[in-house]
Amino acid sequence: MSDQCIFCGIINGAIPSAKVYEDEATYAFMDINPASEGHLLVIPKRHSKDLLEIPTEDLAAVTATAQKIARQVVGELGADGVNLLNCCGADAWQTVFHFHLHVIPRYRDKGKDKLVLPWQPDVPGDKDTIVAVAKRLSDALA
Amino acid sequence: MSDQCIFCGIINGAIPSAKVYEDEATYAFMDINPASEGHLLVIPKRHSKDLLEIPTEDLAAVTATAQKIARQVVGELGADGVNLLNCCGADAWQTVFHFHLHVIPRYRDKGKDKLVLPWQPDVPGDKDTIVAVAKRLSDALA
Repeated sequence: MSDQCIFCGIINGAIPSAKVYEDEATYAFMDINPASEGHLLVIPKRHSKDLLEIPTEDLAAVTATAQKIARQVVGELGADGVNLLNCCGADAWQTVFHFHLHVIPRYRDKGKDKLVLPWQPDVPGDKDTIVAVAKRLSDALA
Repeated sequence: MSDQCIFCGIINGAIPSAKVYEDEATYAFMDINPASEGHLLVIPKRHSKDLLEIPTEDLAAVTATAQKIARQVVGELGADGVNLLNCCGADAWQTVFHFHLHVIPRYRDKGKDKLVLPWQPDVPGDKDTIVAVAKRLSDALA
């Protein structure tokens, strides 16, 4: 718990939120600047700054909650799909430094869904670079 | 395991991949059409179509592996941040129907990082809609 943290304030009720779900380890509430109808955030109750810092069991709890909600986003809201997004670090679009997972309902109806894919997925990368990077990561993880 | 599934083929070695990491439950390999240098995918070894279908323990294993790799993406590759992205359903940009979590390194150097945020995060949503949707989801989850 951090006194300065807006999400800790939401969890303890000092800051209002449109709550969707809560259990022992996690809290879910609506994003006030939604990418689409039903866009919400799942956060751990225990404060962690980001993906690098969050204890693995809190990460598992957050993703389990996100999955539970994703099923209702499809089953109850009638979304045609869902994206989960985590932003770790200011250079990856993180703006609140309490770990959060975006649950973003997606709709076939483009009137309801203005999202654009953040990269061009049909452009091949340089093979040698890919193999070299794989080796660096693989060695570091061994 | 599905005979038709390209990711099952990667796991069993029938289809080549630049492997980064593997453990009992998960497999990680480079994306051949990377959004940025080091872009990779983490998948469960056991076949699941998507986020709605994957057993919660496989989801936890995949996210734990993604976290482990994200730390090396920052520590070893020197990325300035990381995004995790899951696409569930064709309308949410899913193209291979074996659950996968994108691990996307992010760089301050925009020469290395062409990603664009998929929505405008500073545009407030309609308050009444947000509250009404929160209630529908909250009731469905109760």
